Amino acid sequence: MPTISQKGHDMPASPIRKLVPYAEQATENGKHIYYLNIGQPDIKTPEVALNAVKQNDVEILSYSRSEGSETYRKKLAQYFGKHDIKVSHNDIIVTTGASEALLFLFSSIMDPNDEVIISEPFYANYIAFSTASGVKVVPAICDIDDNFALPPIDTFEKLITPKTKAILICNPGNPTGYLYSKEEIQQLAALAIKHDLFLVADEVYREFVYDGNTHYSIMQVEGIDQHAVIIDSVSKRYSMCGARVGCLVSKNKTLMQTVLKFAQARLSPPTYAQIASEAALDTPQSYFDDVIEEYVDRRDTLIAELKKIDGIKVAVPQGAFYCIAELPIKNADDFAQWLLEHFDIDGETVMVAPANGFYSTPGVGLNQIRIAYVLNKKSLVKAVNILKEALKVYPN
Amino acid sequence: MPTISQKGHDMPASPIRKLVPYAEQATENGKHIYYLNIGQPDIKTPEVALNAVKQNDVEILSYSRSEGSETYRKKLAQYFGKHDIKVSHNDIIVTTGASEALLFLFSSIMDPNDEVIISEPFYANYIAFSTASGVKVVPAICDIDDNFALPPIDTFEKLITPKTKAILICNPGNPTGYLYSKEEIQQLAALAIKHDLFLVADEVYREFVYDGNTHYSIMQVEGIDQHAVIIDSVSKRYSMCGARVGCLVSKNKTLMQTVLKFAQARLSPPTYAQIASEAALDTPQSYFDDVIEEYVDRRDTLIAELKKIDGIKVAVPQGAFYCIAELPIKNADDFAQWLLEHFDIDGETVMVAPANGFYSTPGVGLNQIRIAYVLNKKSLVKAVNILKEALKVYPN
Repeated sequence: MPTISQKGHDMPASPIRKLVPYAEQATENGKHIYYLNIGQPDIKTPEVALNAVKQNDVEILSYSRSEGSETYRKKLAQYFGKHDIKVSHNDIIVTTGASEALLFLFSSIMDPNDEVIISEPFYANYIAFSTASGVKVVPAICDIDDNFALPPIDTFEKLITPKTKAILICNPGNPTGYLYSKEEIQQLAALAIKHDLFLVADEVYREFVYDGNTHYSIMQVEGIDQHAVIIDSVSKRYSMCGARVGCLVSKNKTLMQTVLKFAQARLSPPTYAQIASEAALDTPQSYFDDVIEEYVDRRDTLIAELKKIDGIKVAVPQGAFYCIAELPIKNADDFAQWLLEHFDIDGETVMVAPANGFYSTPGVGLNQIRIAYVLNKKSLVKAVNILKEALKVYPN
Repeated sequence: MPTISQKGHDMPASPIRKLVPYAEQATENGKHIYYLNIGQPDIKTPEVALNAVKQNDVEILSYSRSEGSETYRKKLAQYFGKHDIKVSHNDIIVTTGASEALLFLFSSIMDPNDEVIISEPFYANYIAFSTASGVKVVPAICDIDDNFALPPIDTFEKLITPKTKAILICNPGNPTGYLYSKEEIQQLAALAIKHDLFLVADEVYREFVYDGNTHYSIMQVEGIDQHAVIIDSVSKRYSMCGARVGCLVSKNKTLMQTVLKFAQARLSPPTYAQIASEAALDTPQSYFDDVIEEYVDRRDTLIAELKKIDGIKVAVPQGAFYCIAELPIKNADDFAQWLLEHFDIDGETVMVAPANGFYSTPGVGLNQIRIAYVLNKKSLVKAVNILKEALKVYPN
């Protein structure tokens, strides 16, 4: 039989999806599952986006420009402007989700064996994109006891080698919910400039910031233009994960010309989804006000319920809609599978994402899970209660 | 300034799109351009696909499964069955265009410096995907004087080295319009089995076969199951290039498990486009009959008109909607640019794709162009007349 590549062997299975077969079996066995594992919000997509697609007048569903439709990019530039991010449509390349933006970026700035420093725990697919690009992830470990704040900047600086090409953060963070302060961002920016690195911020949760905090973007830092790259997406902002529309934003023209070559090779981002995404930019502020209120309510409920569990440790998220919880168990992988296979309360159980998939450091986070609070409050209360009761009887 | 990767430097610019700035300038100067350079058909997308999107009842535009929606894959399996390709939905992974299917495949079966043999000239982006994957393209050169038929199989076999992982063909071919015979496919299949290679066929033009010929798929060959991979797409079949939906088909389970890991890393293919693609499978046969009739008519017109040009050589395509023409010039790149910048008849000019971008062998195809006959007959006649008159005065 012809052989698979080493890269293919090395690709990690998705920590969020590897339990799917057990979940399917559980469903077949008649169990109802509360999905706390995946960041698919239950929030409705804005009407203005849905209607634009329903009322589209496309007769030939043709390619868009490789860098994305011009009208969409122009409106996007205005959107960024409202967030104090001063860019023109020429600084934006529309991608098929933030995933593709990261892949293009990794290919454009890193060759095999180059290094990217990522604050850990991090979005699991950063490892997948790194493996796909042959790039080495160097983790900057953040601690649950510090609420996953940035480690001291000199600790960070010690990780830089001649192979380092970029620093990557997610702000606010998936899976931590951590919101970087203006000072942290400025420290990272200074480090990137000092060592001539790209500073990459995945800001797809920009709007999801709580408790009166403000999101501070890397592109608000003075003098960062040649170093800063924002990764963005409509997926979470408008509950449009299935659109598959993201973008890469940078004022570094050499970088953008290179990214464009990768974009041209795959021809164009999806056309219907760009129609939806352009229209979504007209979503009224009241939509976001309602959504933020809902998430804050859910977060508060989730944290309050989790704290009722003996021996649990939980970082309080200030943004996004995830939190990491440390459980009084040895191995969250086994526990997550056991929940699906061997536990239920009145036919109901819970699916969680074991957090070790969000760490590249071996052996770290084994007793942690990531919870996405994308379910309504009543379901969250039930789901956490199932966790609590399960932990009482789990054969650790 | 932070540095770009070697890979980023090496990525080729699209031969189809690199003349775009000249075209934009020409348009600004008031010229009308006949676009013979890009495979974007002017054929209308089937109503059944357009209507499915207009009438969709999505309220939360959520992720689909990473391998594509199950209902779509089940209907796709039936479609393949009608073409004598016996597969189940588990043998199909839906991708964001055929582009993504090729990228996933290259990553799954080839490591940097591995080799893929491709019959040349070939779809230009095969080079881009190879560069992006660090893979070496080994061309099997086909000749315009043989209508771009497969070279003798022992010539092909001599190209195989220990680094060779796959043979890739496009059938019918872009940019040649060449349709492989059953015998050629069987020879290639035997070679793949003998040397334990993957045989990959990009069959996105399956329906576009003329003159009473039949398309013979690699998956119709007995005993090829572990070696065969079909790359497919809705783009050309239904004039839905902007959907960005393709798929990868194989019965090799190890391969499919590996491809799925790459698919999971990018989460899912676009949801609206899958709704359109699933509905498109109900397109009535009359649609294809009309389209094929139109393309045959265009091809016949194009070839007849081209043959009126002194010193031209043209391969007659039996499939797809491209042809390669060799012009009495030295450098088609310069000629294509000159057409946009310095030539017009009554304010009209032509944009063609220089064919050297479809060759990896240096210096080959420099005097050739690829013409996509995706314009109506009247426009084709006008466009070829412009070419003819231009060649009379071109300062070669």
